[in-house]
Amino acid sequence: MKAIGKIDWAFSAGRIPFKNNGEEPEFISHDKIAVLNTSEENAIVELLLFYEDQKPVGTYEIIVEAKRLRKIRFNDIIDPEAMQLERNYSCFIKTSTPVVIQFSRMNTGAKANAEMSTIAFPVEPEK
Amino acid sequence: MKAIGKIDWAFSAGRIPFKNNGEEPEFISHDKIAVLNTSEENAIVELLLFYEDQKPVGTYEIIVEAKRLRKIRFNDIIDPEAMQLERNYSCFIKTSTPVVIQFSRMNTGAKANAEMSTIAFPVEPEK
Amino acid sequence: MKAIGKIDWAFSAGRIPFKNNGEEPEFISHDKIAVLNTSEENAIVELLLFYEDQKPVGTYEIIVEAKRLRKIRFNDIIDPEAMQLERNYSCFIKTSTPVVIQFSRMNTGAKANAEMSTIAFPVEPEK
Amino acid sequence: MKAIGKIDWAFSAGRIPFKNNGEEPEFISHDKIAVLNTSEENAIVELLLFYEDQKPVGTYEIIVEAKRLRKIRFNDIIDPEAMQLERNYSCFIKTSTPVVIQFSRMNTGAKANAEMSTIAFPVEPEK
Repeated sequence: MKAIGKIDWAFSAGRIPFKNNGEEPEFISHDKIAVLNTSEENAIVELLLFYEDQKPVGTYEIIVEAKRLRKIRFNDIIDPEAMQLERNYSCFIKTSTPVVIQFSRMNTGAKANAEMSTIAFPVEPEK
Repeated sequence: MKAIGKIDWAFSAGRIPFKNNGEEPEFISHDKIAVLNTSEENAIVELLLFYEDQKPVGTYEIIVEAKRLRKIRFNDIIDPEAMQLERNYSCFIKTSTPVVIQFSRMNTGAKANAEMSTIAFPVEPEK
Repeated sequence: MKAIGKIDWAFSAGRIPFKNNGEEPEFISHDKIAVLNTSEENAIVELLLFYEDQKPVGTYEIIVEAKRLRKIRFNDIIDPEAMQLERNYSCFIKTSTPVVIQFSRMNTGAKANAEMSTIAFPVEPEK
Repeated sequence: MKAIGKIDWAFSAGRIPFKNNGEEPEFISHDKIAVLNTSEENAIVELLLFYEDQKPVGTYEIIVEAKRLRKIRFNDIIDPEAMQLERNYSCFIKTSTPVVIQFSRMNTGAKANAEMSTIAFPVEPEK
């Protein structure tokens, strides 16, 4: 099957919550992206993180296999450095082959378990 | 009326929840898509499912009648095979005529009934 | 100021909830669209409703004044006919001048007050 | 790194809730936008607010530094005038360099802490 989607994605409203009352690991508060790679080749996904008060960090490199889905939790990425909780961040994502990316958050520290989901914003590279 | 929308759609962050505390059938935890076919002809909707750890499954074929809405629950599709609960999946959707698709999830197993809704991502076929 | 946005919009996953436990009128369960008209002229907004089991109903015609926002509750539209509660519907929206439309739902009948919000899907008229 | 995103954005369904039961400042009910500026130059962000029953107010001008994220709470903007709570509004956003914007709301006055998140609508300037 062909590759579908885009190679450049971004979201701006990231924040990994600190408190949580859920059971491990499904209900731990987290931010995550779900990456769908429909193509016949592995996708190299590069994440670059932006912050309010320091220069960008990255890139983080993750492989999503051909014809597979992969969920990436921002709680889990550690190279070049682990992310701080309770800190606002944005993310720019570049891939080697077109993919479809959805961004979602679960906050189990508030009074209700709230999960949100957004299609990340597919960005066009500037000419 | 003319067909409106797109013929290729996808979402990546699917997962049918297992637990639920709702009444049947409205508050059973589920993932679903709402497909709007404004055109004068029936739309043949083909679903192809992607997983984290096995090859894609499908296609599932569903008809949406001309000038009608149809909601499709992923809990209910069984041919070629029923879907497992509590398992991450992505979905690529191809239709015979342009449609508008919205993806939503209800999880009644958490402490609060949470329903989320996202416009699925309209993908352009590659040239 | 110029008109911004699109003239054709649609969403597919509409449903006005029946039960509610909120106070009038803010917390009555409802579906609504928020229409932003930045232009110098009034926008004529036409709604056409689609259902699962009958032909489309409409059009409903509503004016959004120049340089104003207007919220339209689907509970309130009555001409050509009032909408039934607890019934799935989709909506196609055509305007006389470009506008920006956001679709949101509040369901106060569930255990938690849940409000969802989605940008409706801007559709391109077919050539 | 290059600028990514768009220079014109809008959302229509703004409303700053009045009641809240959260702790300061994280759980105060609010509307906010998260603006990601990946470019090498500061972005000048201009906000223009639209209402149901009066002419537009603005512009509000805010700087987002190069290669930084900035969250802007509508509760906090005061020049040319502070915003009223419990009042519907829409927002048109113009920037001097392309950015990525996400709009989210937290309402802690309802029975559950509900947070919603939407990608704002990137609008194309008319020719």
